[in-house]
Amino acid sequence: MIKRFPGTVPTRCRAVAHNGIVYAVATAKNKSAPLYEQTRDALAQIDATLAEAGSDKSRILRVTVYITDMGGKPEMDRAWNEWVDLANPPQRACIGAALADKDLVEILVTAAQ
Amino acid sequence: MIKRFPGTVPTRCRAVAHNGIVYAVATAKNKSAPLYEQTRDALAQIDATLAEAGSDKSRILRVTVYITDMGGKPEMDRAWNEWVDLANPPQRACIGAALADKDLVEILVTAAQ
Amino acid sequence: MIKRFPGTVPTRCRAVAHNGIVYAVATAKNKSAPLYEQTRDALAQIDATLAEAGSDKSRILRVTVYITDMGGKPEMDRAWNEWVDLANPPQRACIGAALADKDLVEILVTAAQ
Repeated sequence: MIKRFPGTVPTRCRAVAHNGIVYAVATAKNKSAPLYEQTRDALAQIDATLAEAGSDKSRILRVTVYITDMGGKPEMDRAWNEWVDLANPPQRACIGAALADKDLVEILVTAAQ
Repeated sequence: MIKRFPGTVPTRCRAVAHNGIVYAVATAKNKSAPLYEQTRDALAQIDATLAEAGSDKSRILRVTVYITDMGGKPEMDRAWNEWVDLANPPQRACIGAALADKDLVEILVTAAQ
Repeated sequence: MIKRFPGTVPTRCRAVAHNGIVYAVATAKNKSAPLYEQTRDALAQIDATLAEAGSDKSRILRVTVYITDMGGKPEMDRAWNEWVDLANPPQRACIGAALADKDLVEILVTAAQ
């Protein structure tokens, strides 16, 4: 069974769950905020989506963080380090890339339910 | 059991299926076409690969779309919106990045069989 | 059960295994080496991590290779082609993006155990 969690547009979802795995994505809602705040914002949405899907950050397997300015990585890391479950840190990669709108960060999460 | 679907070179596959999940990638065959056409082309190849692997677009879980010019995202979105199964939209992220050859778009798909 | 393989920092892992799948990441240890050597280095670390997790390169499903200079792709490909199990090539995508530190390549692997 595939369970889909709609996002802001009908052509894609913010998360999909299947066979015990949740695939989720988040960007910040406030896109005029700087990177640290956008990262906190996106991680809070990841928390909410995982909760809806019967998971939580202690069960995250993989995270890919895309940021538009690799020079800002310490600001992203600061928000990450405050948020991450140190007893259960996921595999993570941080990649510098262009993002849509005024997004400074986009976070892809694969988690176990 | 791992089932592999060869691509154009022997050093990698265009898709691999394992334990009910298909991992697939596609770029356009006609690399001189503009982004909208390249996206349609790549999505058509995703359709073909998923069919070979016993899946289809209604069972896609996650898509990552890489495009070389984020300014062209509306053109990619136009092809996506015409193609996507609105009853079963996947989790999707769109990332701006450099691609090989004259590819304007590369599409990574994770689908349930 | 989720098994985590710590990396160099406590806030993330170099690999996580769950339900028969290993999620792993690697960059080169010697970040002053050129791309060919960094790719060999990162692939050697992938070998070591997969061995720890009860897998090996013949069981890789998907690889995403991020490189900072798409012009160097032939050098990355050279290291890849020497390393890949030609009897079991994975689905692979190569993406040009900015990376942390002086990394020229970062490799994400999804493998079956």
